[in-house]
Amino acid sequence: MKNTKRNVLLAQSGGPTAVINASIVGAFERSIASSDIDRVYGAKNGIVGVLQEELIDLTAQKRETMEGLKYTPSSGLGSCRYKLDKDIHTPDYKRIFDVFDAHNIGYFFYNGGNDSMDTALKLSQYAKEIGYPINIMGIPKTVDNDLCGTDHCPGFGSAAKYINTTLVELSYDINVYTAGTVLLFEAMGRHAGWLTASAALSSLEIYDGIVLTYLPEVPFEREVFLSQIEDAYRKHKQVIVVASEGIKDKDGELIAAQEGKVDQFGHKQLGGVCIQLKQIIEENITKRAKLIIPDLIQRSAAHYSSSTDMNEAYWMGYKAVDYALEGKTAFMPGIERLSNNPYVWEPKLVPLEDVANHEKEFPTEWITPEGNFVTKEAIDYVRPLIEGNVSIPERNGLPRYHKLDKTLMPKRLDDYEVE
Amino acid sequence: MKNTKRNVLLAQSGGPTAVINASIVGAFERSIASSDIDRVYGAKNGIVGVLQEELIDLTAQKRETMEGLKYTPSSGLGSCRYKLDKDIHTPDYKRIFDVFDAHNIGYFFYNGGNDSMDTALKLSQYAKEIGYPINIMGIPKTVDNDLCGTDHCPGFGSAAKYINTTLVELSYDINVYTAGTVLLFEAMGRHAGWLTASAALSSLEIYDGIVLTYLPEVPFEREVFLSQIEDAYRKHKQVIVVASEGIKDKDGELIAAQEGKVDQFGHKQLGGVCIQLKQIIEENITKRAKLIIPDLIQRSAAHYSSSTDMNEAYWMGYKAVDYALEGKTAFMPGIERLSNNPYVWEPKLVPLEDVANHEKEFPTEWITPEGNFVTKEAIDYVRPLIEGNVSIPERNGLPRYHKLDKTLMPKRLDDYEVE
Repeated sequence: MKNTKRNVLLAQSGGPTAVINASIVGAFERSIASSDIDRVYGAKNGIVGVLQEELIDLTAQKRETMEGLKYTPSSGLGSCRYKLDKDIHTPDYKRIFDVFDAHNIGYFFYNGGNDSMDTALKLSQYAKEIGYPINIMGIPKTVDNDLCGTDHCPGFGSAAKYINTTLVELSYDINVYTAGTVLLFEAMGRHAGWLTASAALSSLEIYDGIVLTYLPEVPFEREVFLSQIEDAYRKHKQVIVVASEGIKDKDGELIAAQEGKVDQFGHKQLGGVCIQLKQIIEENITKRAKLIIPDLIQRSAAHYSSSTDMNEAYWMGYKAVDYALEGKTAFMPGIERLSNNPYVWEPKLVPLEDVANHEKEFPTEWITPEGNFVTKEAIDYVRPLIEGNVSIPERNGLPRYHKLDKTLMPKRLDDYEVE
Repeated sequence: MKNTKRNVLLAQSGGPTAVINASIVGAFERSIASSDIDRVYGAKNGIVGVLQEELIDLTAQKRETMEGLKYTPSSGLGSCRYKLDKDIHTPDYKRIFDVFDAHNIGYFFYNGGNDSMDTALKLSQYAKEIGYPINIMGIPKTVDNDLCGTDHCPGFGSAAKYINTTLVELSYDINVYTAGTVLLFEAMGRHAGWLTASAALSSLEIYDGIVLTYLPEVPFEREVFLSQIEDAYRKHKQVIVVASEGIKDKDGELIAAQEGKVDQFGHKQLGGVCIQLKQIIEENITKRAKLIIPDLIQRSAAHYSSSTDMNEAYWMGYKAVDYALEGKTAFMPGIERLSNNPYVWEPKLVPLEDVANHEKEFPTEWITPEGNFVTKEAIDYVRPLIEGNVSIPERNGLPRYHKLDKTLMPKRLDDYEVE
């Protein structure tokens, strides 16, 4: 009798988060519990691994590895920034389905941001066109929190928890001297200022002083900035400036734009905004300016993840498989917030069409009239997402994270050149 | 009957650490347990608070505050970088002892680095000269780990734990893409490379790639650096460069020297080394260079302190009072390491003369011949110091730290102008 069970393929894409692997573990655990599913595979480095038929068998991993993966930061399967052609009648699409077919893939889950949701959507369109039976789902993740159709994105809460915790601790540090300080903290967030805005929460717990947030949504004006900082410095002495890497002038030009550095998706690589702001402040206000560039730490600091965020990441993976088993395709599970206090949410089904290539901006009505802080609504929005801790076993005094065994499964197809 | 009990005065100085307050709590708890001691006071902002008679009563704080202070980062009493004149026959000395006398201070504890130990030493010399009965002790702290006479310094272990944890997490992040990366991490340490060297421990737990450490003890040569990074990038793809803010060229000139920025002690303010290194790497090796400047986070990240370090900080404070009650003066408690594995230590008595204004350099025999990594001895030295976690209560999803009530005690003397 022929085995009618199909296999699952999981893949991760885009920038990692502290909890992205929890989604993979959630999808894995739901899959192995289903009698409709045989093996659970992972693609190495996202869609590139699918194209190159580089698959690993998650069902064959040590139990300890899959358990430890849940709290291990960054994309355990590896990631990519490869973008499929808009035209689904190009060789990559055929190749992907040849690989699916060769490995009896009946369920494909793509764990990523809006670019990845676009990829998943196109694959579902191609599947429909060629009549290949498969359920394709997105699983949301991004520290940027800019996916449409969901209240927030797994990964955001942990990044926000790290940023806020660090700002509180820094406020204790700079307050030890009687002299004032302007501390410049550069936050991630290419276009949407969610992470930068989240930093406003720290104002509830800082030692003393003031927190100001500069978002990409508000055109940056040097003179306004200088007068705001000067004013804050005079009134509060200790000034914490959280500036998004993506702040732009009124013509939409990035303050930190670096010539010649553009990624696969045409996004300009950012970094260095606060180096410039520090210089402006030292020349005009005070020499006591401190520069903090945490960069990738913001999305990888799993040692202090939010357990709320990690649980949600897990459930997004779990529900994606649930929905697929119900026959859904071209959807992503999202989060519907039912109440802030107590914090209650439920999963919902979001069509990939509503997510792919869209970007959810930070609401302008949550920005104060001065443009350098956010409203209570924004703080109330972030607060529940950073609640709770994750306990991580240690070895050598350091968090003991887990690496997947990345032995490739035997290839059944010829090699395929990517790019 | 006259009260023969004397009062204790505690003060903190220099750059804070994640566990410096544990020393204050240790000294406080030992003091209130002694029948020889009446009240325990704290001076606001170190010796400046003594000069200005700005004292607070620690004995009158809420119990919850003193308990919470133990895990609160940064100097709870405030700090200063004020340096007393070398000549003890200057007005500051007389003033300090007028304040001591006005508040019946019989024990003074100065919690700081080598500059503070110098201050404590001079005060003990002055006390002897004028015949004022007082026991003066230093309590060691510094993330730089550069105090002589002790195996290591409280504060170092927690900073090392933060740096290593972060590097491990960053290694998981940069390994998600197939492309190589040069990650530049700027570590604190003005002259001594202890913290930078400590980062070698992360090599035991990183995902993949190589960690290289550039210490101030090794003259920095641009061409050697470039060829080492190029070689590492070719062989390992993922290269983590940890560079001390204090690296110097062969003429002893700081790579990051910034003109016109000199602190009270004549130390040049550092920062920005890795901005320069990033540029060198982008121009010569790869555009995939990532810049991480954690700066003050390294010494304030109490949310992931080493419990070993925190306990030692507590005991240094506790023992300082113990020794003073035994009649000692002009000493500092130090740490004698008896064994690495299991890690065993005992306190020892260190004459302030051996500590004041000296600097313990990182041992050159612990640096590899290439000058960009350290030996197993160095890693074995650091490892036990970062062991263990401290559990911190949370509020609003953030560590709940504690602020002292800084209501000043009534002044008994006239005002005194500092500087």
